[in-house]
Amino acid sequence: MNLHFSPILSIALALLASSLVAANDWKPLFNGESFDGWKQLGGRAKYSIEKGEIVGRSVADTPNSFLTTEKNYTDFVLEFEFWVQDGLNSGVQFRSMSKPEYRNGRVHGYQYELDTSTRAWTAGIYDEANRGWLYPVEYNPSARSLFKNEQWNRARIECVGNEVQTFLNGRQVSHLVDDRAITGFIGLQVHSIRDASHAGYQVRWRNLRINTQSPKLSRSEEIYVRNIAANTLSKAEQERGWKFLFDGNRTSAWKGISDVNPFNNEGWIVENGALTIQPGGKGGQLITKKTYGAFELDFDFRLAKGANSGVKYFVVDHAEPGEEKSRYLGLEYQVLDDKVHPDGSKGVVGNRTTASLYDLIPSYRNVNTRDVPLHIGKWNHGRIISRPNGTIEHWLNGFKVVEYERGTNVYDALIAHSKYADIENFGLSQKGHILLQDHNDLVSYRSIKIREL
Amino acid sequence: MNLHFSPILSIALALLASSLVAANDWKPLFNGESFDGWKQLGGRAKYSIEKGEIVGRSVADTPNSFLTTEKNYTDFVLEFEFWVQDGLNSGVQFRSMSKPEYRNGRVHGYQYELDTSTRAWTAGIYDEANRGWLYPVEYNPSARSLFKNEQWNRARIECVGNEVQTFLNGRQVSHLVDDRAITGFIGLQVHSIRDASHAGYQVRWRNLRINTQSPKLSRSEEIYVRNIAANTLSKAEQERGWKFLFDGNRTSAWKGISDVNPFNNEGWIVENGALTIQPGGKGGQLITKKTYGAFELDFDFRLAKGANSGVKYFVVDHAEPGEEKSRYLGLEYQVLDDKVHPDGSKGVVGNRTTASLYDLIPSYRNVNTRDVPLHIGKWNHGRIISRPNGTIEHWLNGFKVVEYERGTNVYDALIAHSKYADIENFGLSQKGHILLQDHNDLVSYRSIKIREL
Repeated sequence: MNLHFSPILSIALALLASSLVAANDWKPLFNGESFDGWKQLGGRAKYSIEKGEIVGRSVADTPNSFLTTEKNYTDFVLEFEFWVQDGLNSGVQFRSMSKPEYRNGRVHGYQYELDTSTRAWTAGIYDEANRGWLYPVEYNPSARSLFKNEQWNRARIECVGNEVQTFLNGRQVSHLVDDRAITGFIGLQVHSIRDASHAGYQVRWRNLRINTQSPKLSRSEEIYVRNIAANTLSKAEQERGWKFLFDGNRTSAWKGISDVNPFNNEGWIVENGALTIQPGGKGGQLITKKTYGAFELDFDFRLAKGANSGVKYFVVDHAEPGEEKSRYLGLEYQVLDDKVHPDGSKGVVGNRTTASLYDLIPSYRNVNTRDVPLHIGKWNHGRIISRPNGTIEHWLNGFKVVEYERGTNVYDALIAHSKYADIENFGLSQKGHILLQDHNDLVSYRSIKIREL
Repeated sequence: MNLHFSPILSIALALLASSLVAANDWKPLFNGESFDGWKQLGGRAKYSIEKGEIVGRSVADTPNSFLTTEKNYTDFVLEFEFWVQDGLNSGVQFRSMSKPEYRNGRVHGYQYELDTSTRAWTAGIYDEANRGWLYPVEYNPSARSLFKNEQWNRARIECVGNEVQTFLNGRQVSHLVDDRAITGFIGLQVHSIRDASHAGYQVRWRNLRINTQSPKLSRSEEIYVRNIAANTLSKAEQERGWKFLFDGNRTSAWKGISDVNPFNNEGWIVENGALTIQPGGKGGQLITKKTYGAFELDFDFRLAKGANSGVKYFVVDHAEPGEEKSRYLGLEYQVLDDKVHPDGSKGVVGNRTTASLYDLIPSYRNVNTRDVPLHIGKWNHGRIISRPNGTIEHWLNGFKVVEYERGTNVYDALIAHSKYADIENFGLSQKGHILLQDHNDLVSYRSIKIREL
């Protein structure tokens, strides 16, 4: 059964749920008078207590500073209010650590981002000094308008097991399912500053309280769930209709396009939770048995050095009647070690690099002040969204890098200049298969999930 | 002074204005009991009176039918309510005529459109059996949601001098400045039907009243003013900051790009209110003295058979330092007799036809069920909008035929395949000149107006 809750209903339920928590399950995290139970780590930013509020002030020529709890917390709900001066970046660490053996004691772990820039990623989840952005607010663009500049804002962080949800001014911003559930301290960050004229900029926190007695996840709003835990479907994903195309084990959603069984010892194999195509071209293309129109596809991919593959969609057989061999063609999310493989520099303006709409639209890997990474030999996260309104998006490692609409005059002009120019109605079918490309190279996929929209 | 009124304020003022009209300036147009003062023209659709309402019912195999007033009206405000059955097209004629010498008595003139289709152009202005669409609701897309299907809707038509404004359920839909101010009857249309199963479909009118004593134009909402009167700026256009680049007379906004005076007897001449480039290439390119970033440009153009010209924007001099000749290049709204001139079939998928973004994006001339006309030897209406958010639109004769954004990955891919591939930063300047192209052919422009956004 798929349960679809409206955002409003979700909020109502969340409020109801929190009101049912006994008031004395909440404990103040800060006594309003002294820093007993807190210690400063990292840089030399100044922390003081004014009118019962914690005030952090930036200092030039010092790294990120953290006022941290001496206690560690694992499962909890944390609430606080914050006020940030325009131009200062800040954040609140949770489940964080500082250990001599890790980068000389550098504070690392989850951060609830406080972002006064036009990027507006407040309440996104950043893994400080470790994995970087886990939930950039690109995933939930409407949440970018929730932050109130130089006003008091209300924050809520829910950590239960391996799930984290963040809220800002009453609305959910992020929903992360991690591959780990760690313990650690809570810490109030004052970011280092590049511009010395920003010295003395303030961030204020007040009304910090924590519930470790009865921590619960609110029912999630209908936002994207970023699930890092390989080959798992969280409860929220299942409720929203996500289904596996590959769960680390079963390949029953897929078939080959010729008489050869693609799942042979020299072709596609399942190993260590990954669906891997081996070099040699003995697997052939894999297509889904089902076809899809409006959908959201999530997958991880791992490229060997110099390797080439691709995820195609709206794939249909373009063979003419009577033609013996099939010709399965479709729009392609490029998967390529584009720095090493020669195809990466062919085409125009980079439209054969990873996550590009192959030979048509380049994936621009500098988005909203961040360079989008591509890891070779490690797992990357891909995402294709084909919306009911006709818009299609390609995402790479947390960022939208391509957006277009099929069948427009722009689309037709791009096709006419591409290798697809002579294929009638290329990419225009109402529904099509998803295809994983065997390009004679070593490439792995895992956590392949889809939901129809 | 530019006066900018918010839509809400405009409505408030409009309501205030109408409430100030003495109640007895209004006369019922229909007595609720009989068709005294009315007569039926055109087809054989059935009109009856039920509960004080006029009911029109469609009939198969008959042309458009009209229940018309015997009296003619010139300046007036007309209000009525209407209810249309889903699937039926209808309308209300005004300033309309039926004369034996014009198409055998065919009813022609302004029509307030009643449109139940997904196109949703209700309250647009159509010139029945004459010039066709004068104010398609493409000009005011947010008004497409005002019509309530199979419910009572409130209509208002204001005709004063050569201006017409229409309203639907309290909001303004269209604002037309015509080149004529005619007199004529009011008529209730039942459209002919293509599908015989639609016979008997109903349209109802009630509470028809007219004010001919004190007709006034409400202050217009901030919608596009379609001004057909050549080389004029209406009061509303002036208030919104529109200025002439060519008013039928003065060419002082323009200059040439070489030492040759472009306004010579064999080059650009002003004649009969038009700025005309003569064949022979003796005029050269004309550019505006000023440069523009975000703007709205309106112009009429007339092509001789087989002729070629173009309106360029974001035009800057790409000559290298030390290069003697200028190289003024920019994005081009193509102006071409594309059926006859060989360039019309070059490029790809029609991206060198009129109103295309030249060599980049084709103008698709079938928009929202209408084929967009291009008249050779007659005046056409062009429009270029460069919005502050970076979106650019090309319009032709009432329809948006191209929309794109500069500097995106899609833009870069299109440029890379075009004749502009080797020009650095082509079309990307913050501001640029407007340019009228001398392509050795006979082409005229008039009513060239611009306002900065």
